[in-house]
Amino acid sequence: MNYRFVARQLGLLLVVMSVALAATMIYELILVWGGEADAGEAMAARALGISTSLGAILGGTIWFFTRKHDQDWALARREAMLLVATSWVIGAALAALPFLLWAHLGSSHADHPFRTFTACYFEAMSGLSTTGATVLGGEHSKIADLPKGLLLWRSLTHWLGGLGIVVLFVAVLPMVGTAGKKMFSVESTADKGGVRPRITETARVLWLIYLGLTVLCIMLLKATGKMGWFDSVNHAFSVMGTGGLSTNDASIGGFDSVAVDLILTAFMILAGVNFVVYFHLVQRRWRSVLDDVELRIYLALKILVTVVIALNLLNVGYKTTAGADVEGGFFTMLRYASFQTASLQTGTGFCTADYDAWPMMSVTLLMGLMLIGGCGGSTAGGFKVFRFWVLLKVLFAALERAFRPNVVRPIKVGKTTIEDDTKLSCLVYFAMMILLTALGTTLTLLFEEPNGIDVQTAASASYASLCNVGPGLHGVGATRNYGWMQPATLWVQSALMCLGRLEVYALLVLLVPRFWRGD
Amino acid sequence: MNYRFVARQLGLLLVVMSVALAATMIYELILVWGGEADAGEAMAARALGISTSLGAILGGTIWFFTRKHDQDWALARREAMLLVATSWVIGAALAALPFLLWAHLGSSHADHPFRTFTACYFEAMSGLSTTGATVLGGEHSKIADLPKGLLLWRSLTHWLGGLGIVVLFVAVLPMVGTAGKKMFSVESTADKGGVRPRITETARVLWLIYLGLTVLCIMLLKATGKMGWFDSVNHAFSVMGTGGLSTNDASIGGFDSVAVDLILTAFMILAGVNFVVYFHLVQRRWRSVLDDVELRIYLALKILVTVVIALNLLNVGYKTTAGADVEGGFFTMLRYASFQTASLQTGTGFCTADYDAWPMMSVTLLMGLMLIGGCGGSTAGGFKVFRFWVLLKVLFAALERAFRPNVVRPIKVGKTTIEDDTKLSCLVYFAMMILLTALGTTLTLLFEEPNGIDVQTAASASYASLCNVGPGLHGVGATRNYGWMQPATLWVQSALMCLGRLEVYALLVLLVPRFWRGD
Repeated sequence: MNYRFVARQLGLLLVVMSVALAATMIYELILVWGGEADAGEAMAARALGISTSLGAILGGTIWFFTRKHDQDWALARREAMLLVATSWVIGAALAALPFLLWAHLGSSHADHPFRTFTACYFEAMSGLSTTGATVLGGEHSKIADLPKGLLLWRSLTHWLGGLGIVVLFVAVLPMVGTAGKKMFSVESTADKGGVRPRITETARVLWLIYLGLTVLCIMLLKATGKMGWFDSVNHAFSVMGTGGLSTNDASIGGFDSVAVDLILTAFMILAGVNFVVYFHLVQRRWRSVLDDVELRIYLALKILVTVVIALNLLNVGYKTTAGADVEGGFFTMLRYASFQTASLQTGTGFCTADYDAWPMMSVTLLMGLMLIGGCGGSTAGGFKVFRFWVLLKVLFAALERAFRPNVVRPIKVGKTTIEDDTKLSCLVYFAMMILLTALGTTLTLLFEEPNGIDVQTAASASYASLCNVGPGLHGVGATRNYGWMQPATLWVQSALMCLGRLEVYALLVLLVPRFWRGD
Repeated sequence: MNYRFVARQLGLLLVVMSVALAATMIYELILVWGGEADAGEAMAARALGISTSLGAILGGTIWFFTRKHDQDWALARREAMLLVATSWVIGAALAALPFLLWAHLGSSHADHPFRTFTACYFEAMSGLSTTGATVLGGEHSKIADLPKGLLLWRSLTHWLGGLGIVVLFVAVLPMVGTAGKKMFSVESTADKGGVRPRITETARVLWLIYLGLTVLCIMLLKATGKMGWFDSVNHAFSVMGTGGLSTNDASIGGFDSVAVDLILTAFMILAGVNFVVYFHLVQRRWRSVLDDVELRIYLALKILVTVVIALNLLNVGYKTTAGADVEGGFFTMLRYASFQTASLQTGTGFCTADYDAWPMMSVTLLMGLMLIGGCGGSTAGGFKVFRFWVLLKVLFAALERAFRPNVVRPIKVGKTTIEDDTKLSCLVYFAMMILLTALGTTLTLLFEEPNGIDVQTAASASYASLCNVGPGLHGVGATRNYGWMQPATLWVQSALMCLGRLEVYALLVLLVPRFWRGD
């Protein structure tokens, strides 16, 4: 294992994060100097400043002392996996720092969740893994009461996490080798149409696309007149990473605007699409886009489920997350249904409606979409549409093989024949997600047993964390948060978020002893 | 498709079932003539008599008119699958008849569940699939109030169902072809050591072993002095099929006897072992038995979980199913823990303790055992130990492949190398069980939504039905029953039982259009 190489890249990561921290600090300082801010804001500026310094010093030191590393890493699969895993695990520790420092430096309430490192780490991991679960929202920890610099930092962790996923998983890691490609970039979707000229070129284009979409989203949100620049930027960051953290305690329902709902619905859908599709669009390969089976299934699922839920919601009384009664006909229901399906399918986790009060059918469909998730190679979470499609085809083929064992019919998705290796890996991934959800649910139930917790809360929280969604049902529903959980449970949920974001393998391999041995 | 052959075998099945029905009718008539019986018993004799006649006439007619069938069925895989599926589906209809007739002929209470065909079919399918879920136990439908002939018929359906599984799945179906063997007899466990001389010989030995164990169980239960002949026979039938229906409303807890508990625990464990093991024992192939990896894991899991639960239960207050407080130290807890682990692991479903009140850890472990199930080639339900072991090995291998894609290490269970086909089929089976449980839970939640139902009840009921266990948690817990469910839900649960018993494929293939076409 080339630890020197991994350490050097981690050092670089810490420096990059420090730059981002510095940016939020500067924003905070501008507020303070402009006289717009209270003492809490000033304290946030200080917390951000200390974090920036610590990150830069630590990262810089590591970077400096590992400058003599082995340059040949093109085939270093294990190093790449270790780097990815530690990037999120250690990155979240730095990202948690401003929250913790602010809570202890400032005059936060004694019950504020940010006074414990566990809760801060949870919030940071939720951010970087683009999950969007929050410990905030209690009586003494309203989101709106958080200093603006910290709010921006929360949203920025989403954006950075999403960028990491798009660039790392779609551009960099597939180059490491065949299995890397198989594992990280949802099989064949990433290499059709020749998306692999040179790493840096691909990464550059993807990053520009990501940035371009973010800027477009900011502009559109600002243009609605319902959001100021601050909210527009925060929500654009959040939506592009399919994160879900909001600056509003009632999430998007708090803005109560059809325009905002529509724009965010559109951008959630856009963020859940394989970024290779945009790569094709930029290169004017229309055919590749039109032939993308995963994209078609993704959109078809979204539309179908939305219409069914909208019909199911007719004459059902429920409230928005802001507490207002929802009234109206099919189109109003379509608005809320469309928003929530996009939000849960892509694992964003924004909420406009308190879907906990929806009929069982709608809730079930939402949970189903949550598990299937978005497209591979996007910032969305979950099992991924491509894998889901392969899974269905494999199951159906298994039924046919049961009565005709000698007929071997190749399984195809679009024009691509699915290899045995891919079939096995989809099934393995499914089994892992189920077992991890079961394990997470069990641990959550055990740790929360003294306080009483229902299975729906435990299971949906674990499921939502693993799928990087954020809100679940009941105790962690649309209008609730994770702040009531025991520290042990918060660690479990943090681990699930990280596992989900790194598609299980990159983190779990660290538990295999042979991974660490040179053989 | 050779319908004539399938129909002829079905006709034969109906005739065989009529013989069993006739036996219970004769028992009932002896009671009536002996003056031991009330009017209800006499009505039951009449119901059993009518059912016997109908079954015999229908079966005999089909048998007669299909006598000119194609004799060559040795390779007729689809016919075998259709036969297996229809045997359980149609067999349950005949088995339900005595219940329905008795309820309508006699003076059963207007609220008695047996007044609907749905509930009778559920009870019959629960019997034949060796599940052991019951609709009885309500205020007006105490199990103890059922005529003895019908009680005996319930237990007998377990025994017949178990016999069908052992003989069909272990002896007959593997001979149909390779895939048949793969599918029905849990892969390689059935053909190691040469268990395939000739179909009839194997079937004869297995049937004698099954009968011998049953007789031994009856003798031992009677010898305890806590059960009369009637209860001994019923519970021996029930335990050998890993069924779980009891003649006592409080299940085995109603007998409150250490000896009965120990004997039934032992026989539940015995019934969960691959019957090929007994075949080896009869042939004095000790080595084959000692080398059986599945058997070792099965017993190790059972012992380990039992000890953990017993420790977990120290100082926990709970009641037996008969309502008595359980007090005492480690050995008392071991008694109840050992009984419940054996019961849920093998899918028997007998209860001595109301485990719903056990700590979360114990309940979770019980549910885990339930999913894993017993050994392949036994009458037990669930995923099966062998598949579970392969699944774990495949998942671990996948992790290793993630960082060393070029190292191909064969997966072994004992000395047997697991082929790719087997790996895929274990994963597919796991995915199917999960998806079917999810589907069952969803439908149960939807159908019971108007009456209010918690997720634990819906999920554990679906899970317990698919694993052929019987009791689940909460609303279908150890001291409850399925009688409160809506007809639609009962059909869902009946379908799950049948799917679980036939290891999914044999029933699901009927939904594949190509199965019915000749091509």
